[in-house]
Parts: sequence; C-alpha cells; structure tokens
Amino acid sequence: MSTNTQVKSYAALSPTAPLAPYRINRRELRADDVSIEILYCGVCHSDLHNARNDWGRAEYPLVPGHEIIGKVLSVGRGVTRFKAGDHVGVGCMVDSCQHCKPCQQGHEQYCENLATYTYGGTDRHDGSRTMGGYSERIVVSDKFVLKLPDGLDLAGAAPLLCAGITTWSPLRHWKVREGSRVAVVGLGGLGHMGIKLAKGLGAHVTLFTRSPGKEEDARRLGADRIVLSTDAAQMQAAHGEFDLIIDTVPYIHDVNPYVPTLAINGTLVLVGYLGGLEPVLNSVPLIMGRKAVAGSLIGGVAETQEMLDFCGAHGITSDVEVIRMQDINAAYERLLKSDVKYRFVIDMASLREGR
Amino acid sequence: MSTNTQVKSYAALSPTAPLAPYRINRRELRADDVSIEILYCGVCHSDLHNARNDWGRAEYPLVPGHEIIGKVLSVGRGVTRFKAGDHVGVGCMVDSCQHCKPCQQGHEQYCENLATYTYGGTDRHDGSRTMGGYSERIVVSDKFVLKLPDGLDLAGAAPLLCAGITTWSPLRHWKVREGSRVAVVGLGGLGHMGIKLAKGLGAHVTLFTRSPGKEEDARRLGADRIVLSTDAAQMQAAHGEFDLIIDTVPYIHDVNPYVPTLAINGTLVLVGYLGGLEPVLNSVPLIMGRKAVAGSLIGGVAETQEMLDFCGAHGITSDVEVIRMQDINAAYERLLKSDVKYRFVIDMASLREGR
Ligand SMILES: [Zn+2]
Ligand SMILES: [Zn+2]
Ligand SMILES: [Zn+2]
Ligand SMILES: [Zn+2]
Repeated sequence: MSTNTQVKSYAALSPTAPLAPYRINRRELRADDVSIEILYCGVCHSDLHNARNDWGRAEYPLVPGHEIIGKVLSVGRGVTRFKAGDHVGVGCMVDSCQHCKPCQQGHEQYCENLATYTYGGTDRHDGSRTMGGYSERIVVSDKFVLKLPDGLDLAGAAPLLCAGITTWSPLRHWKVREGSRVAVVGLGGLGHMGIKLAKGLGAHVTLFTRSPGKEEDARRLGADRIVLSTDAAQMQAAHGEFDLIIDTVPYIHDVNPYVPTLAINGTLVLVGYLGGLEPVLNSVPLIMGRKAVAGSLIGGVAETQEMLDFCGAHGITSDVEVIRMQDINAAYERLLKSDVKYRFVIDMASLREGR
Repeated sequence: MSTNTQVKSYAALSPTAPLAPYRINRRELRADDVSIEILYCGVCHSDLHNARNDWGRAEYPLVPGHEIIGKVLSVGRGVTRFKAGDHVGVGCMVDSCQHCKPCQQGHEQYCENLATYTYGGTDRHDGSRTMGGYSERIVVSDKFVLKLPDGLDLAGAAPLLCAGITTWSPLRHWKVREGSRVAVVGLGGLGHMGIKLAKGLGAHVTLFTRSPGKEEDARRLGADRIVLSTDAAQMQAAHGEFDLIIDTVPYIHDVNPYVPTLAINGTLVLVGYLGGLEPVLNSVPLIMGRKAVAGSLIGGVAETQEMLDFCGAHGITSDVEVIRMQDINAAYERLLKSDVKYRFVIDMASLREGR
C-alpha cells in the first residue's frame, strides 16, 4: 500500500495571510516510518510566531503543529514497536543526526547537527520541507514516535508533547523530587503543565504571578502557594526558598527579582523567553548563594516517553479548549491575549469532515 | 596566660591613607579559641578594595588580610583539635551562625545570618570589629581554623585560603573529575589556582586569555590549551567544549562569547565580578543547550579543609612573590596593574622584626 498521499491541512501561505485549507503530500513509508492519522493537535505559541514569521525563519507554505496525538495507520517494514491502531504522539522533532554526543546521550533537542523540527525543518533524507500537525496525517520515523499510555484523554494529552516536556525536562534534570521546592513563573500553557508535573513529582509548588485572579485556578492545578510578584512583601517572604524556578514567561521581563527567592544552589531556568536579559542580570545574588540562571529546550525522545508514562500513571493531562480546525485564526487572536485555559487543541475530525 | 595582647599590625586609617603600622588588641582566649602567630598572609584584591573603601562598606581602622598561615601559640580550654606548634590556616571567615540551613550543610559562606568575615566583620559575642591577617597574631574560634597538611611551602599555601578555595568550591560542586573539560577565564591569583586545581582533579584544562604572552606560563601551571578570546576562529573552535568555565575576571566584561563554548549542560560560574552583566546576557544559547550562568563565593569550612588536604597530597601551592609588610603599599599599586605572578604574600617576620 502506498501512503504517498495528498492530505488535507491548514497552512500559512504568507506572514500576513490567515491559515487556510491546503493540500500537502505525505511521503511513501520508508522502512522505519510510521504513518499516523492525526486525531488532535495542540496549538503552541510558536505555531503562531512561525506562521507569522515573527522569528524571521519561516518559509511558505507552512503547516504548523507539533503537539500531535494520533492513531497508527500503517508502518514501514522495519518497524516493530508500533502497529496499526496504536495511539501515539509526535512532538517538536521528527529526526536528528543520531550520532553526535547529545544525540547519543538522548538529548536530541540539542543535536549538534540540529534536530529536524516537525514543521519548517528539512528532511534529512530527501531534503523536503517538514509539515506539521495541522493536517490529517503525518509520516514520522519510528524513533521519534512516542507511545501514548492507555487511559489518557486524547485531546488533553496533545499539549504534553511540547508544553509538557518543556517543563518536565528541567524538573528531571534538576532532580526535583518529593519535598523539593519548585516555583513556576507565569500561568499559561507551559506554566500550568509545570505546576501539574512538579506536583506529580511530589514537590511543594509555588506560582509566581502578576494577577491576583489566578489564585483559585492555580490551587486547582496543584499549586500550594501563590506569590504575587508585584507585592514586595510577598517576594521578600519567599526569600531563599526555591530549589528550582521554571520561568515560562515568553516575553522580555526582569528575572532579577526572582533570583533572591532561590535557595542556596538553586537554579532559575528560562523556558519561554529567547533574547537578552534586560534589565541586566546582577551577579551579586548569584555569587552570594551559588545560584544559577539557566535555559532549557523541550526534551529528548526518551525523556518525552518517560514524561508520557508518568502522566499515564498519574492521570495528568493538559487543561484544554478543543476547537475546530476552521477556528484556528480566531484561536490565534485569543492566544495573543492569553485568552485560553490553558491550551487550544484542534480536533482533527473537523478537518477531515470539512465541517 | 592571658593572650589579650596588643599586637603589631598594618592598618588603613582612611580610604586614602597608605597602610601604616598600627597596634590592635587580640582578645583573651575563649574556650573554643585558638591563638595563632601569623607567619604569612596573602594579599587579595579585596584587601585593597576594602582598604580604599571601593565597595562603600569599610570602617576604619581596617586591618586587611584573609589568607593566613600561622603557627598555634595556645588554645582555649575546650579546644582539642589543635595544640601549640601546629601549622594552621585561616581564610575569609572566622564565624557564622552555625544553625541556619546553609551552615548545617557546611556552606558557612552562605550563612543566612551572614558569616563573620575575618576583617571588617563584627564579632558575634562581644560586638568588636574583626581585624585581619596583616598582623602578628590572630585569635579565631577553632571551628574556623584549618589544619595545614605537612610538606607545603608555607608562603605558597597562604593564597589557598581565598584564591584556592574560591576556585576549588565550584570545581567540586560541579563535579569536575578525571576527563572533565574545564576552562578558566583570566590568569591572575584566582585563575592560576583554578588551572592548578582543575589539573590536579584530572580535568583537561583550557585558559581563556586576551594576552598571547601568557601561553608559556599557563602551560607551566597545567593548562592543556590556551584560547585567545580575542580570536574569533579560536573561540569558534572551542564551541560546545566545556563542562565548566570558571570566570575569574574581576571587572565588568561580556560573558556572552563564552556561553557557546559550554557543552550541553555546562555551567559558566562567575567568581570574580560582582555587578550587572553587561552587555546583556542572551538567553538563546542558554536555552539551546541547557547551559547555565552561575556564581560562587569562596567555600565552606569543611570544603576548605578538603582543598588543603588535596593540595597537601598533590603538592599544590600558589605561585607567590613574598614581600615585606612595609612594602604593602607598593604591592597594592602593582596589584592594580596585575603586575604579580600570581599572588603577593607578606612574610610576617618583617612586621615582628620591624625591618
Ligand atoms: Zn511548542
Ligand atoms: Zn545529533
Ligand atoms: Zn580574598
Ligand atoms: Zn548560618
């Protein structure tokens, strides 16, 4: 059976055009390929930024989407880990060099030869441009296909593939465990997953937020404490507290006020903001308590599987608002206003049925 | 025997006056005290900055000096670890609260109630101002007195108490071992100890320097490789290399060029510069390789003892230029021009004998 098929998708054709129906080719299966019927695809901020070329790297047509949950349709002749009917996930990467040191260590996201991203990347074999999850189907090398544990809500599982792993990877790297004190800065797609996953690992979890109105929701998600970052007394009371702070804020912001709330040997890890740290980071509180400011990018394949298995065991999924593919442009506008709790997920049946 | 004695010292009496002979009191021994005849005292940059009130915290008279090597004269009635005649060291701290979490963990330098510094501090019992090692004698609680292993050159051992431990602590915290790849930025008092200690731990050691003329000396000290930080090709060739970079530069400088030379999960630790990181630190290379920028301050008491024992076992001391107490002001002027390889150490016999 040939799966070199034209499939329906939604694509951006220019930085300013709304996303619109578009047909793309999915390749015939290679020996290691898995063909997946996409059931749900999460809507990540980076989808919007790439569609609109905010980062200057976009090529069109561009089909976004890297929080993919689907069902296996068929597999290449060399694939043994998956079979038709399996529920699977695909995240931000679909390939990497596989031989550099980071790849060997399971850190494919830091591949020295650059991982192949799920959309807007270049296939390492045929040079074609990769197209993402706003689509009926996708074909992915089995090494980058994740097994979805049974029992998880399929729509709610989709954001685990980017928002989930982006917060899971630092939690694990900095060895968060029972009794660790973790803070999350910002309550959006990433932040709400950070709270759930840190709580799942047994940490005492604090949310830093600028909005008093978020307290109730944060507690429902698992936060033990809310600190209003605009309240100097509350910030002072949190002095020296946290082993790890996961800063999910996606825009430029002052990280200096958070550093003193780290415990000795604590780390603040940036997962949302790419750019210069302004106002300038002061080294004094870093030196006066062996504190660190670090960054972290999504996570490796094995780590992503570990996270999915953990979520399966603990019943953790994202809080989602399911939308139709046809509503994506309105969803993007709401995303820009942070008007979503906490992730839009596209029900891909809407695309197939053309509703 | 009462040891409440007037002793000779050299003190700054104002931010602008040269250091000059001055008599200070050393207290009668408390039960846990050790009275030490000072044999050698290293000259740290911070001595100069404090004497001249560059950091705005000085009170006068101020007797600098926190790299102290001496011989025990007598001990308080509760002291069992030391006896008259023992060779000992005293570093940057002479006391701390002993009950906060960092103190309990052996991180007295990060004491939540602030460690008592060896000079310019306030004694926790009688409220007197502490006076440092540019002096004939000092009286220190035994918990903050270090045993000096046999066989080390006494003058060369003095700088281990600040420059040594300041580089040792991050080497140990970030688990440098056989085969680790370590870089040191800057070849001064701290930098030359960083090279020696990292090499002693079995690391492959690189020196980043702006001066081509330092290569020969760096190799003699143990560096395996020298990278001219002004040479873009050499910086590019070091891309992704280092598990740990110890940045000893004491003035404002751009750390951004060093971050890409960190390996995945690598850390750049600032030990020399207190202030804002300008130009602004860019989060992109941090995120794109889970890299960190951290700070570290001297080291704890147990860690300092560990470092001294390690130096004893490996025959490691500082490269020093021994001076007379009377030459301290000229030495400060040379220090400002980095004209010393690599630490001035005062032979305290010169003070006693008044030569
Ligand atoms: Zn994403
Ligand atoms: Zn690779
Ligand atoms: Zn010092
Ligand atoms: Zn303490």
